[in-house]
Amino acid sequence: MKRTTDLALPHIIVIGGGFGGLTFCRKFPDGLARITLIDRQNHHLFQPLLYQVATAGLSAVDIAQPIRAILADKPNFQSLMADVCGVDLQNRRLQLCGGLATHEIHDELTYDYLVLAVGGVTSYFGNDDWAKLAPGLKSLDDALKIRRQILLAFERAEIETDEAKRKELMTIVVVGGGPTGVELAGTFSELSRTVLVRDFDRIDPRAARVILIEGTRRVLATFPPDLSESAERQLKKLGVETRAGARVQAIRPGEVELSDGEVIRAANIIWSAGVAASPLTRKLGVEVDRAGRVKVEPDLSLPGFPNVFAIGDMVTLTDKNGVVVPGVSPAAMQMGKHAAKIIAHEIKEQIRPGGVAREAFAYRDKGSMATIGRSKAVAQIGRLHFSGYPAWLAWLFVHLVFLVGFRSKLSVFLQWTYSYLTYRRGARIITGAHGAPPANSA
Amino acid sequence: MKRTTDLALPHIIVIGGGFGGLTFCRKFPDGLARITLIDRQNHHLFQPLLYQVATAGLSAVDIAQPIRAILADKPNFQSLMADVCGVDLQNRRLQLCGGLATHEIHDELTYDYLVLAVGGVTSYFGNDDWAKLAPGLKSLDDALKIRRQILLAFERAEIETDEAKRKELMTIVVVGGGPTGVELAGTFSELSRTVLVRDFDRIDPRAARVILIEGTRRVLATFPPDLSESAERQLKKLGVETRAGARVQAIRPGEVELSDGEVIRAANIIWSAGVAASPLTRKLGVEVDRAGRVKVEPDLSLPGFPNVFAIGDMVTLTDKNGVVVPGVSPAAMQMGKHAAKIIAHEIKEQIRPGGVAREAFAYRDKGSMATIGRSKAVAQIGRLHFSGYPAWLAWLFVHLVFLVGFRSKLSVFLQWTYSYLTYRRGARIITGAHGAPPANSA
Repeated sequence: MKRTTDLALPHIIVIGGGFGGLTFCRKFPDGLARITLIDRQNHHLFQPLLYQVATAGLSAVDIAQPIRAILADKPNFQSLMADVCGVDLQNRRLQLCGGLATHEIHDELTYDYLVLAVGGVTSYFGNDDWAKLAPGLKSLDDALKIRRQILLAFERAEIETDEAKRKELMTIVVVGGGPTGVELAGTFSELSRTVLVRDFDRIDPRAARVILIEGTRRVLATFPPDLSESAERQLKKLGVETRAGARVQAIRPGEVELSDGEVIRAANIIWSAGVAASPLTRKLGVEVDRAGRVKVEPDLSLPGFPNVFAIGDMVTLTDKNGVVVPGVSPAAMQMGKHAAKIIAHEIKEQIRPGGVAREAFAYRDKGSMATIGRSKAVAQIGRLHFSGYPAWLAWLFVHLVFLVGFRSKLSVFLQWTYSYLTYRRGARIITGAHGAPPANSA
Repeated sequence: MKRTTDLALPHIIVIGGGFGGLTFCRKFPDGLARITLIDRQNHHLFQPLLYQVATAGLSAVDIAQPIRAILADKPNFQSLMADVCGVDLQNRRLQLCGGLATHEIHDELTYDYLVLAVGGVTSYFGNDDWAKLAPGLKSLDDALKIRRQILLAFERAEIETDEAKRKELMTIVVVGGGPTGVELAGTFSELSRTVLVRDFDRIDPRAARVILIEGTRRVLATFPPDLSESAERQLKKLGVETRAGARVQAIRPGEVELSDGEVIRAANIIWSAGVAASPLTRKLGVEVDRAGRVKVEPDLSLPGFPNVFAIGDMVTLTDKNGVVVPGVSPAAMQMGKHAAKIIAHEIKEQIRPGGVAREAFAYRDKGSMATIGRSKAVAQIGRLHFSGYPAWLAWLFVHLVFLVGFRSKLSVFLQWTYSYLTYRRGARIITGAHGAPPANSA
């Protein structure tokens, strides 16, 4: 069904269909502007549950929804799947990658307002050669790759007769003790001890080692110290070895070297230690920090370009209350809402971009939580600190409520219930070009 | 949990965890032998629903189950994920690919009985260069590739301004009018007309062309003529153009040439015209037909090797009633059961392989069915012929009953109900190395 788009309306382009970009589109009032959302993927990804795809708990489809479907009913809205390679801020025009801009869709690529919400990428702090040896977890493809690698390692261990090699195959090193690292380490350990343990004959999956490496002095460094301690205790109960205060010196095929000289042999190395802004930010010609994040004005606009906003993980900002805004999804959503409010007001009142004083963004910290395993989590809501079962229930509730789409909610709820009752995982499927494990290569 | 395996028991190796191999393992009585199932994948795939993954109706995880999990409770059973490259029938030993056999797991690779159930592969009748241009549908990876390609083509059409190119992107050619081809063509047409139609802005997905090419004079040539006619009528209602009696002369990038000289421009070409036995059969040193299928004895054993059975799609056989056994899953399952019965009897009675006269295999035709779309199907059960809604209900029922695993059944049932009520599809997610569509390449 072709929707009619009113081309006389001001045009807003949003780049990125993550939490920030999607919230902007949802919150922007209908009828004031036509909106074009451009993303290189066709889906919005529910990032907080991505680790569950990597650990075979959920399928890719459960945590992703086509952007077109989410916003199918919004008038004067269109979605384009394309890769943006540059922005001409002076002429208010986008360049698509691969010459697609020459296809005479100029109308779609020229904007009155631009909202940049391109998010982050895995950062190896200059050691880009580590990317191949220690995959990060930012996209569905990353998650499927990690799932495939870990499940294949256990299959290979099952036919491996060399004791040292078998141990190596059954060792998982997670680098970075933030929420994602903690969630991955806890869930991998649980997967091997409660799920895989029933299926293998020659190996004992309970002997699998999961080692979590954190550079600072405690895991979940952004959480209150008592919750970090609780998280470490809960991880220990699951069999995870935590190395706080340990830095990675080098990563080589099959091994990680720490700064104290220790070498850990491991066939599986996952990187969750660093995030940088998408490379697009360095092409904008505006000031960025070391991680490539754009330094925005208090109203979230780009310095010198009041008609361009940047929101979410690609931004570095100390808000009007002096709070450094963290790179988390609630912050991205709040920023999307803030930008929508400002732009809607200016269009409605026919004010030129930045023609009136704008409200400064203020981050509202609604708390933070991390799950560690079955009935194991930590949560902080204001001054309240939870651990264990109550925190885990709160985590389940919040993630189900925010998961986009009724179908996904139902499917995820049913799979969680099933896994909880049966200690089974449904998504233990290895896909990828070659089925059988490659021989003689760790 | 390590299970104890009684190494004193006779050893049966089963190669292939499809319908034939899995049925053999399930039906073989416990306690008589130890069984090793070797497959290059870690999962059993419910092939009859594979087209629904390719058409974004179900997710990969819904129709695949880890082999280890399916048979976790079977005593004296182990599963190995490995690629078998050859069989030394004289010495009753397997060779694994990539030198894995040197890993000193001789015990696992030497057998008393061998059951070959390696299935089929897509065949291009000698035109192997067509494989890249027109993917077949045999594995989960195939299905995900096709899903990705079709969804990307619509995304590219949305940003394409050249009318001819846009039409090309919105044309899907399915080669081969057997059940899989009919199911793919019908579902693609339905997908564009009822699901995608709501989501696109610049293109009208109802204008998509789906062309089904069949070399013989009617689609579903193995079905009774009245059901073929009904299938063609039902396909037409869904907007599918059927070309019976048309043969493919050549496939080039973006186009299919028919034997009558007609050239169809299409960015999406799917091949479901031919199946051959797995290449392993040609390495056995036994007689095979043109499609590489092994000519087995009436009892399903290999000529000259009474301790080796071959079952399923890799076999060509006229059974004891003079019926040519078709390459369908019920036949594979019946053969698995037959081989299990013979081997169990001989081991139990301590008879050497083939030491007594064996029963010849007889295929029991329980009917056949093909689905075409929502409330559209054909089915034949004995002398009864159904079309439309009743056939579709029968199809739903049979496929749910045979789908392995409670969790998958529930999940598939819920997704079908959801799709039926809402005309939506949940699995419209594009995954793969590159998100955005490549520029300027049809």
